[in-house]
Amino acid sequence: MTTATARAYPNIALVKYWGKQDEDLILPVAGSLSLTLDAFPTTTTVALDAATGTDTGTDTGIDTFSLNGAVATADATGRVTRFLDRVRELAGSETRATVTSTNEAPTGAGLASSASGFAALATAAAAAYGLDLDRRDLSRLARRGSGSASRSLVDGLAVWHAGDDAHSYAEAVAGPDMRMVIVTVDTAQKAVSSRAAMRRTALTSPFFPAWISSTEESLAAMLEACAADDFTRVGRITESHALRMHAVIQSCDPPIRYLAPTSVAVFDAVAALREQGLEAYSTADAGPNVAVIVRPEQAEDLRDALAGFGSVRLVGAGDGARLIDAGATAAAEARPGAGA
Amino acid sequence: MTTATARAYPNIALVKYWGKQDEDLILPVAGSLSLTLDAFPTTTTVALDAATGTDTGTDTGIDTFSLNGAVATADATGRVTRFLDRVRELAGSETRATVTSTNEAPTGAGLASSASGFAALATAAAAAYGLDLDRRDLSRLARRGSGSASRSLVDGLAVWHAGDDAHSYAEAVAGPDMRMVIVTVDTAQKAVSSRAAMRRTALTSPFFPAWISSTEESLAAMLEACAADDFTRVGRITESHALRMHAVIQSCDPPIRYLAPTSVAVFDAVAALREQGLEAYSTADAGPNVAVIVRPEQAEDLRDALAGFGSVRLVGAGDGARLIDAGATAAAEARPGAGA
Repeated sequence: MTTATARAYPNIALVKYWGKQDEDLILPVAGSLSLTLDAFPTTTTVALDAATGTDTGTDTGIDTFSLNGAVATADATGRVTRFLDRVRELAGSETRATVTSTNEAPTGAGLASSASGFAALATAAAAAYGLDLDRRDLSRLARRGSGSASRSLVDGLAVWHAGDDAHSYAEAVAGPDMRMVIVTVDTAQKAVSSRAAMRRTALTSPFFPAWISSTEESLAAMLEACAADDFTRVGRITESHALRMHAVIQSCDPPIRYLAPTSVAVFDAVAALREQGLEAYSTADAGPNVAVIVRPEQAEDLRDALAGFGSVRLVGAGDGARLIDAGATAAAEARPGAGA
Repeated sequence: MTTATARAYPNIALVKYWGKQDEDLILPVAGSLSLTLDAFPTTTTVALDAATGTDTGTDTGIDTFSLNGAVATADATGRVTRFLDRVRELAGSETRATVTSTNEAPTGAGLASSASGFAALATAAAAAYGLDLDRRDLSRLARRGSGSASRSLVDGLAVWHAGDDAHSYAEAVAGPDMRMVIVTVDTAQKAVSSRAAMRRTALTSPFFPAWISSTEESLAAMLEACAADDFTRVGRITESHALRMHAVIQSCDPPIRYLAPTSVAVFDAVAALREQGLEAYSTADAGPNVAVIVRPEQAEDLRDALAGFGSVRLVGAGDGARLIDAGATAAAEARPGAGA
C-alpha cells in the first residue's frame, strides 16, 4: 500500500474568482488574488490499494472517500474520483485509492473547504501515485478539482493567472503584512452552490461581461497596491471588488443573494470602525461569512469589535499545501512481492 | 393673491429609474414603471405675492418655502425656486411665490417624497400661474423637479417613457390589481442622496451600460406582464429588477449600499413566505425601506407577517396629482384693483 498525507489551508480571495471560461479545464474568466490562511486546515491521506487496481473487466473501479470520519456522499466521491482519474492519467496508473480527509472548517458554508480540500488531495495524490510535480504543476492540477484550490498551493498572497491550461496556475506575490478576522455568521449549507451560481451568472447576468473586464482592472490595481506595500489601497480594492462580486451574483435571473442580514451588519460595522480609525476592510465569498483584513497591530482590536456578530477567528498568512507524510515505508511494506 | 393647492402621492417603481441621460432636463436613461400609492400624500399650496413680483432692479426675488410647518433649508428652497423659474418662464411671469407644503412621509428616507412633492408643486404652481396644461404636460413639468415626480401625475400604474423632452412623460397602464406593504425599517436620513448616487453610478460603475439595456428589457417584459394581467410575472420582474438596481449601485467606486441588515431580512422573509404560498415580491428604492407587492386577497396576511420588521403600512393604488383648491375667489379678492 502506497500512502501519502498532505495538509492545505483555505484561502480567501481579495480579488475574486467568479466565472469560468472553460468548465472542463476550470480556466477562470479573469485572474484573482488571495491570502492563504494559517487556520482551518484540511488533512488528506491518499492510500493506493493494489488489490483493486486491475485492468480486467471485473474491476469495480471504486475509490472510497471518507470526510470527517464518515463515508462521503456519492456526489463528493464522484468529484474525488474524477480528480483522481486525472492523476491516474498523468501517472499511467489504474490503481484505485482510499481517500481519508478531515476539514476543520465547516464544509459548504462559504469558507472554501473545496480549496483546501483539492489542494491537499492534489498534493497527496501526486505523491502517492509517484508523480514528480513542482509547485506550479501542483497548482495547475489542484485547479482541476476546484479553481480556487490552485491558490492554496501558495504561501500567503497568491495570484492565480487566467490563461490556457499551461499558464493558469497560482504563484506567490509580495504585499503588505496583514491579518484577517473571519466572522462566521451562519454555518448552514448555502442554497445555491458556487458552481451552479457561477454558471447562472454567466448565463443570465447582464453585468457579466463588464464583471470580467472590471475584475481584470481590479487585479491590475491590486498587484500595483501589493507591490507598493499599500495596505489602504489593498483594502479599498478588496471591499469594493467583493461588493461587485455580490452585485453581479445578485443580478442573476432568478437572483441569488449570499449575504445574510448579519453579513450586511458586519460590513456596516467595519465601515463605522474605519471612521473611528480602526482601518479594516470587508470581503465575503459565496456565502454569508465575512472576512475582514486589518493591519497586524489592530488585529486584536478588530477581533474584539466583531465578536458580537458570530464566532470570530483571527488568522494570518499560512503555508501552501505541503506533504506531511510521504508514507514510503508503509508503501514498501505493503507492496506484495516488493524486492529486498 | 392667487393661490392653488394640490395633493399628490408618492409612487414606488416596479421597474426603477436610475440614471439620467440629461441632468438638466432630467431625461432618464431608460423608461420605468411605478404604482402611485393611496397614502403618504404631499399637500402643497402655491400663493403668488404680487408685491414682490416686479421687474425693477430692487426686486429681492425670493420665493419662500415652508415644509411641514418650518422654513425649509436653503437647498430645498433653491430647488423649489429653480422649478418655479421654469413655471414662470412658461407663464411669462416674474411673480414670486410662497409655497407651503406638508408631507405625511418621512423626507429623505427612501419614500420618494420628492416625487409627491414635485408632482403637487407642478400641479399647484401651474394653476396659480394660470398655465393651461394637460396631465401629460404636467407630468413633463413635474419631471423637471424630480424625475420620478412625472409618475405621480398618473393614477395607479404609470409608465414613464425615456426619450427627448417632449416625449418623456408618464401615462397610465392597465395591470393586475395589487396591494403593497411598505416596511419602514429606518427613517434616518440616508448617507448619499439619490441624485449624487445616480451620478456616481454613471461615472464609476462598470455595470452601468448593461444596467441601461437591462432596464429597457425589464420594462418591455413588465409591460407585457401588465397587459397579460399576470401578477406572478409582474412580481418576479419587480424583485429581480430591484436587486439589479441595488447591484449596480453597490458596484460604484466607492461602493454605495442602501439596504440595511433589516432590509435584507425582509427580502429573506418574503422569499420564505412565497415558499409557504403567500405570493409576494420585494422592492426597495434608494434607501433601506422595503415595499412588497401582493395580491389584494393576501394583503392583510402579508402586513401581519412583516409587522416585526418595522412599521408596516398596507397601501393600494392611489390617484395622480390633483388640484384640490383652485383658490379663484381668494385670488379675485386679493388682487388689488381687480375689475368688477
